[in-house]
Amino acid sequence: MEKPYFNGIECPHEYILALKDALNVTTGKWKLAIVSSLLWENKRFTDIQKMINGITPRMLSKELKELELNGIVVRRVYDSTPVLIEYELTPSGRKLNEVINTMIEWGLNHRKQTVEELVG
Amino acid sequence: MEKPYFNGIECPHEYILALKDALNVTTGKWKLAIVSSLLWENKRFTDIQKMINGITPRMLSKELKELELNGIVVRRVYDSTPVLIEYELTPSGRKLNEVINTMIEWGLNHRKQTVEELVG
Repeated sequence: MEKPYFNGIECPHEYILALKDALNVTTGKWKLAIVSSLLWENKRFTDIQKMINGITPRMLSKELKELELNGIVVRRVYDSTPVLIEYELTPSGRKLNEVINTMIEWGLNHRKQTVEELVG
Repeated sequence: MEKPYFNGIECPHEYILALKDALNVTTGKWKLAIVSSLLWENKRFTDIQKMINGITPRMLSKELKELELNGIVVRRVYDSTPVLIEYELTPSGRKLNEVINTMIEWGLNHRKQTVEELVG
């Protein structure tokens, strides 16, 4: 996969914007953890909280609202008794899986290369 | 590309570490801009500075040192007259191209989907 987004001289404004959008969602201590927790199934607030070590309800609430505003997460309210509220990834949020995978692949390779250089 | 890094229940520690390594290099205002500026050719300090709007020499120096420590950039000193100092990406730094491309692809798609939802 070799796409010429950069030509070494300049980078079109739309690519910069696209990159900033992606950074906006990947940056920070919690956002990718929240997205990951929703990749396999929709979850309620307390279920997400249980999956993420150390996040306070206040932080989780703030982050979920930001992810909603950015079109990554949808908050679903089901008219049942008691009312069920679930969080679901949008198609775009689900696609973040690809970004996460590429990052993990890069990180695994980076560790391997760095260790190899240290060893000789 | 569907890799099962997450199984929805837990994520092995090495994947978390790999993801953190990647986030460490992609997060922040300047790091990806510096990496991008070196993707096509090695550059001198002042050339990098010219390519990146708004970065101060002090910030650039700090970021380059961090990228060096993290094994992303190598500082090359050539014994010429005058002495030439260039910055070069390591193989691992070069591979960040794939992360950047995946992020741009995600961002372009995200904008398209968000606009489509707003329009209808």
